[in-house]
Amino acid sequence: MAVYTDINETELGAFLADYDVGALQSYRGIAEGVENSNFLVHTTGGQFILTLYEKRVNRDDLPFFLGLMQHLAERGVSCPLPVHRRDGAMLGELAGRPAAMVTFLEGIWLRRPQPVHCAEVGRGLAEMHLAGEGFALTRRNGLTLEDWRPLWEKSKDNADAIDPALRPETEALLERLEAEWPRDLPQGVIHADLFPDNVFFLGDTLSGFIDFYFACNDALVYDIAVCLNAWCFERDHAFNLTKGRALLNAYNEVRPLSEAEIAALPVLSAGAALRFMLTRLYDWVMTPEGSLVVKKDPLEYLGKMRFHRAIRSASEYGLD
Amino acid sequence: MAVYTDINETELGAFLADYDVGALQSYRGIAEGVENSNFLVHTTGGQFILTLYEKRVNRDDLPFFLGLMQHLAERGVSCPLPVHRRDGAMLGELAGRPAAMVTFLEGIWLRRPQPVHCAEVGRGLAEMHLAGEGFALTRRNGLTLEDWRPLWEKSKDNADAIDPALRPETEALLERLEAEWPRDLPQGVIHADLFPDNVFFLGDTLSGFIDFYFACNDALVYDIAVCLNAWCFERDHAFNLTKGRALLNAYNEVRPLSEAEIAALPVLSAGAALRFMLTRLYDWVMTPEGSLVVKKDPLEYLGKMRFHRAIRSASEYGLD
Repeated sequence: MAVYTDINETELGAFLADYDVGALQSYRGIAEGVENSNFLVHTTGGQFILTLYEKRVNRDDLPFFLGLMQHLAERGVSCPLPVHRRDGAMLGELAGRPAAMVTFLEGIWLRRPQPVHCAEVGRGLAEMHLAGEGFALTRRNGLTLEDWRPLWEKSKDNADAIDPALRPETEALLERLEAEWPRDLPQGVIHADLFPDNVFFLGDTLSGFIDFYFACNDALVYDIAVCLNAWCFERDHAFNLTKGRALLNAYNEVRPLSEAEIAALPVLSAGAALRFMLTRLYDWVMTPEGSLVVKKDPLEYLGKMRFHRAIRSASEYGLD
Repeated sequence: MAVYTDINETELGAFLADYDVGALQSYRGIAEGVENSNFLVHTTGGQFILTLYEKRVNRDDLPFFLGLMQHLAERGVSCPLPVHRRDGAMLGELAGRPAAMVTFLEGIWLRRPQPVHCAEVGRGLAEMHLAGEGFALTRRNGLTLEDWRPLWEKSKDNADAIDPALRPETEALLERLEAEWPRDLPQGVIHADLFPDNVFFLGDTLSGFIDFYFACNDALVYDIAVCLNAWCFERDHAFNLTKGRALLNAYNEVRPLSEAEIAALPVLSAGAALRFMLTRLYDWVMTPEGSLVVKKDPLEYLGKMRFHRAIRSASEYGLD
């Protein structure tokens, strides 16, 4: 949670002059988003989120992210809609960084999601997958199997200091995933980072998805694997079968899973757990002391890696 | 800029049930305020700022701060209005901390104020001073002359490492202020921290004052001294006479300064510069590495201390 780049009223006024959004009323830095700087902007034309893309985001990827939000919003998925400038572009520049404005989405993200919310996420994810069909641009998943070993090589020397079991278990899982990773699953546009802080609710109803900055083309069921990791474990790191059941069966009702997808769920879930362990480990090592970024514990995902390795059938996640 | 305490939807819902503000629509941590945790809360009843008071704020002072905002708002000063709970109280508890909601104020704070804005601040400050008359509660200034030497004793051993001139110049100024500090100036309620990030503008018009958490009873002209330090120096730390002139004369038009107040301005301005140098020095030393708080350079205020010490008459600040 951070604002990496502050902006002054003069440059913001000049930036907004390229949009048809009325006069600036207020702007506040918001303490969310670990990759970019975000501001809540009020103008006489409405409320918007202004994002300045910091260096971790590849500028070449921005048309994919912004175009995807527009594609999904036009197909009924509740997500931020990029605001076009007067010249038609969705991307401008502010404080030396690429910058875009999207519509403000009401809703709160749940610090303590319940099974009813997991069902909403499963249903909404399936709807998003269906709505993603036909999106013209493509983007490779930059954090999939092929990327994990290079990431591991960069940070493995620090693994022992965190937990002696981390290195041998990661090496073993990497080898197993490299041998078993399924390649012929139904593909599509996935969100790839659908954690609770990226899903808004009004009451118990899902009101929108945000933060598409890891979205890419990959196996659709990998998105479910991410959600199992993100939504269905408790604070003590135990899997909650009621939540898994709610999420999987709600998804399956909207977009029925194939036999191959169901069979692949344990290996993909182990892979997703490894993916988040690896980026957390990398950030743990690379983030300087004194940074505004809050470090997240890689060991939470070591426990999830173990859990998924022991799963023999998707029914153990609660799929009917 | 920080959110020290996150809150979850369950406890926020329970907190809001004590207010007549409708249903929760969204809440976002905002990256402003170095003392407390602030959230922008949307409900079906409107927009509010929710503040959780962290440990640096004395709970016993909260009725003064909240009562003052209400007193000023009722007398036409644009400032956040505390929202009363159904039971009439202005203060509740959230996440184990005292918490209050105030109305959301439109406007932006100026990163680069110009002389026209300094005139607005001078005029608005004088209006606030007049509106403060009759406020029933009182609060001692906890960062005035008597408090400076104890604060200096706690951090002076670290002064040399910052600048070898800091220690002798601070000691000399402290002695001079202890000898010369005026005691018979017109008293009233002062803001005591009216920096640009605490004043909102819509276009070039002042739209409101925020952050009354240093407000107290003291010499009214001390508030002007704070503003001279906060608004009338450039980034290269040079005094801008045009800004000083704009601020002082606009104030003087609304609330004419007495001869004694005019004569006291240089010594009070030097005192205000010392006060901000001291708290910055203290924070510099005490703030752990890795904290979310952005440290501010004490040396900026050493330059201002020197400047004010050399002033012989308020006309050198631009007062006509």
